[in-house]
Amino acid sequence: MWLGRGGRRADAPKPRAHGLPKNRLETLIDGVFAIAMTILVLELRAPATLGPEGLGGDLVGLWSRFATFFISFIVLGVYWFANHQVFHFVLRVNRTLVWLNVLFLMGIALIPFAASLMGTYPQDPIALSLYGAVLGLLAALGYVIWWYLTGDRGLIEPGLDPELVHKVRVWLAIGPVITPVAIAVSFVNTTVALLIYLVLPMVFIFFNPVSRYLERLRETEP
Amino acid sequence: MWLGRGGRRADAPKPRAHGLPKNRLETLIDGVFAIAMTILVLELRAPATLGPEGLGGDLVGLWSRFATFFISFIVLGVYWFANHQVFHFVLRVNRTLVWLNVLFLMGIALIPFAASLMGTYPQDPIALSLYGAVLGLLAALGYVIWWYLTGDRGLIEPGLDPELVHKVRVWLAIGPVITPVAIAVSFVNTTVALLIYLVLPMVFIFFNPVSRYLERLRETEP
Amino acid sequence: MWLGRGGRRADAPKPRAHGLPKNRLETLIDGVFAIAMTILVLELRAPATLGPEGLGGDLVGLWSRFATFFISFIVLGVYWFANHQVFHFVLRVNRTLVWLNVLFLMGIALIPFAASLMGTYPQDPIALSLYGAVLGLLAALGYVIWWYLTGDRGLIEPGLDPELVHKVRVWLAIGPVITPVAIAVSFVNTTVALLIYLVLPMVFIFFNPVSRYLERLRETEP
Amino acid sequence: MWLGRGGRRADAPKPRAHGLPKNRLETLIDGVFAIAMTILVLELRAPATLGPEGLGGDLVGLWSRFATFFISFIVLGVYWFANHQVFHFVLRVNRTLVWLNVLFLMGIALIPFAASLMGTYPQDPIALSLYGAVLGLLAALGYVIWWYLTGDRGLIEPGLDPELVHKVRVWLAIGPVITPVAIAVSFVNTTVALLIYLVLPMVFIFFNPVSRYLERLRETEP
Repeated sequence: MWLGRGGRRADAPKPRAHGLPKNRLETLIDGVFAIAMTILVLELRAPATLGPEGLGGDLVGLWSRFATFFISFIVLGVYWFANHQVFHFVLRVNRTLVWLNVLFLMGIALIPFAASLMGTYPQDPIALSLYGAVLGLLAALGYVIWWYLTGDRGLIEPGLDPELVHKVRVWLAIGPVITPVAIAVSFVNTTVALLIYLVLPMVFIFFNPVSRYLERLRETEP
Repeated sequence: MWLGRGGRRADAPKPRAHGLPKNRLETLIDGVFAIAMTILVLELRAPATLGPEGLGGDLVGLWSRFATFFISFIVLGVYWFANHQVFHFVLRVNRTLVWLNVLFLMGIALIPFAASLMGTYPQDPIALSLYGAVLGLLAALGYVIWWYLTGDRGLIEPGLDPELVHKVRVWLAIGPVITPVAIAVSFVNTTVALLIYLVLPMVFIFFNPVSRYLERLRETEP
Repeated sequence: MWLGRGGRRADAPKPRAHGLPKNRLETLIDGVFAIAMTILVLELRAPATLGPEGLGGDLVGLWSRFATFFISFIVLGVYWFANHQVFHFVLRVNRTLVWLNVLFLMGIALIPFAASLMGTYPQDPIALSLYGAVLGLLAALGYVIWWYLTGDRGLIEPGLDPELVHKVRVWLAIGPVITPVAIAVSFVNTTVALLIYLVLPMVFIFFNPVSRYLERLRETEP
Repeated sequence: MWLGRGGRRADAPKPRAHGLPKNRLETLIDGVFAIAMTILVLELRAPATLGPEGLGGDLVGLWSRFATFFISFIVLGVYWFANHQVFHFVLRVNRTLVWLNVLFLMGIALIPFAASLMGTYPQDPIALSLYGAVLGLLAALGYVIWWYLTGDRGLIEPGLDPELVHKVRVWLAIGPVITPVAIAVSFVNTTVALLIYLVLPMVFIFFNPVSRYLERLRETEP
C-alpha cells in the first residue's frame, strides 16, 4: 500500500503515517536537475570586449564551452530520465533511500563545476578525468540505488518483472564500466575522451530497457 | 487510460506501470522555465562605480539590457504557456517525447545567454541573429513536438478536434517562418530586428487557438 | 467544475479539456519566488581580501546589504503568501490570468536587481525609489489580478463571500497607496524610506483578511 | 479534515475554503532547498589561470571549499529531510506556520553565503562562528516550528503518538545545544569546530525518531 502524489484522500478512513510518500523527494530531485541544467549556461558569457575577429570569432573561440554545455545537458537529461523511470516503480521512500538520493544530487550539483573545468581546460587530462569521475560515481550510485530498491524492502511495486530488474541492472552498469576507460583515455588523447563522453549518453538513451518494457506492456494490454 | 498527477490511487486494483505519467516532466519543464526567467535578471547589475550623471544616468545607459530582459521574459512566458497548453492534452510521455523536450529545454536554457549577448551588443547583427536563431529553433522544435504528439501514438487525448490540431500547427509555424526574416533584417537594421522580436510574442499571444478552443468548449458546455 | 492537481481521475468518464488547471501556473510561480528569494543571497559575498578590522569589520560594512536581504526576503514572502491565498480560491486559469501573472513574475524577478541597487547605494534616492516603484507596481498588479479574478468570469469559486472580496481589495490597495509616499520620502530622507519598506510588509502580514476569514470559517464549521 | 495535494476532488460536494493546503508551501520549500543546494557549487570555480603545479595542484588548494560544499550539502539534506518528515504529519497551514517557515527559508538561503565565508576563510573563527550561528538558529527555529505544530491548533494529525512528539523535540534540540559549543570551540581550534559541523549532521541522521517510528508502524501493520 503506498501513497502517491495526492494519494492520501479526503475520504480515507484515517491518514496512514507509516511510509513517507515519494512526491517531495521527486520535487527536490526535479528542482536540483532543473537548476543544474540551467546554470550550465552561466559558463557561456558574452565577451566583455570584442577581439579582432568580432563577436563571431569570439564565439567560435568558445567552442569547448558550447561542446561541454551540450554534452552536460544531455548527460543531465539521461540521469534525470533514468531517475524518473526508476522512481516510477517506487511506492514509498525511507531514510536510506533519501540519503542515497541526497548523495546522488550532490554529484548532480557538481556537474556544472566539472563542466566548467572541462570547458575551460579542454586539453587538460585532469579536467577530463574529473568530469569522468563525477559521471562514473553518479552512475555507480544509480546502480546502488536500483540494487537497494529492488531488495526485499517493500519500497517498490511488488511483482515487478525480475527480467526487467536484471536488465536495468546491466543498463546501469554501463556507466561505471565505461567511465574508467574514458578517464584512462583522457591521459592519452583528450579528444577521444571527449567523444566517449558524447557517445556514452547516446548509448544509454538507445538501450533503455524501461522504455521497451513499458511499450511492450502497453501493446499486450487489453 | 492515463495517469495524471496523483492519478494512481490508493484504491486502484493494481498500479499500472505501462505508461509514464507526465507530472515529473512538467515539474522539470516548469523548473527550467522559472530559473531561466529569473536568471535573466543577473544581467542587470548595479554599476560598481557611479558615472558623472549619477545612478540615474547609469541606469539609462543599461536601456538595451532592460529591453532584452523585457523581451526575453515575455518570450519565455510565450513558450511556457504554449507548452502548458500543449501538455494539457497529453496523456502520458514516452522516451521520444522526453528527449524532444530535453532538447527544447536546452534551447530555453540558452535564452539567458543569447539575451546577454543581445543586451551587451544591441547593434551587432551576430548577437541579434543568434537570438533569433535560438527563438526560431525553439519554435521549430515546438512544431515537431506537436506533430509527434498528434500522430497515432496514444500520447494525447483521443478524439481531439482535428481542426484544433491543424490550427495549432499553423500557430506554431509562425515562429519558424518569421525568425529567419528577423535574422536577415538584423544585418540591415538591428533596431527593426529588435522590434520584430518584440512584436512576434505579441502576435503569438493574441492568436492563441487553444485559448479560443477552450473558451468555446466552456460556452457550449451544459 | 474545475480540475485541481490530480483532479482528472482515472475513473472519470472522459477528460474535460475546456479549462486549464491552475497547478502548472502555481508551480511556475513557486519556482520563480523560490529562485528570487535564494539569489538575493548572491549579493552577500565573502570579501576577496580582508580589511584592517578583519572579517568582522568587513561584515559590519555590509550592513546595508544584510538589511536589504532581510527586507526583500520578507517582501517576497508577503507577495508569495498573498498569491497563495488568492490562488486558493481559483478554479481554473485562462489566457488573461496567465499573462497578468507572467507580468507579476517579471516584477518578482526584478526584486533581486532592485535589492542589489538599494544594498549597494543605500543613500541614493534613485536606488530607493526604484525599489519602491517595483514594490508598488507589483502591489498594483496584485490588485488588478484580484479585480479580474473576482469579476464574473467563472475563474473563482462561486459563492465567495462578497465581504471577503471587498476586504481583500482594500488590503491589496495598501501597497499602491503607501509606496508612492515612500518614493517621495526617499528624496528627503533615505533612512525613513527604508523604514517604510521594513514596516509595510509587517502591516500587510498583520492585517490579512484571508487568514481571518479562513480561521472564522473553521470555527463555525461543524 | 484536510486537503492534500490534489485533495479537493472533482466529485466533492463543494470546495472547502477554510484551511490552506500544505502543497504550495512544500513546493516553495523544496524549491529553496534545491536552489540553495545547487548554488553551493558556484563557490567551486575553475581557476582563471593555472599555477606552477597545474590544475591538479590548484584543485587541491581548493580543499576548504570542497569540504564546505560537502558539509553544507549534507546539512541542507538534513534540514530538508527533517522538514519533509515533520510536514508529513501536517494537515493544513496557517499564517503563523507560513511565516515561521519563511524565516526558516531565510536561514536556508543564507547557508550558501555562510559556506562561502567558511570556504574562503577556513581558519577564521568569525567565519566558522557565523556558519555555526546560522545552523543553530535554523535548528532552534525547527524546534519552535515543531512546538507550534504540536500544540492544540488542529494543524497536525490528531492522535499523533505523544512519545513521538517528545522524541522529535529532543532530537530537534540537538542542534541548538551543540552549535553554541562549536562556536566557542572555533575560537580555540578551527579544525575541531569544522569537525563538529561534519559530525553533527551524522548524529542527526542516525538518531532519527521519525524514521524509527514509521518503520515500527509498518512492521505492526496487518
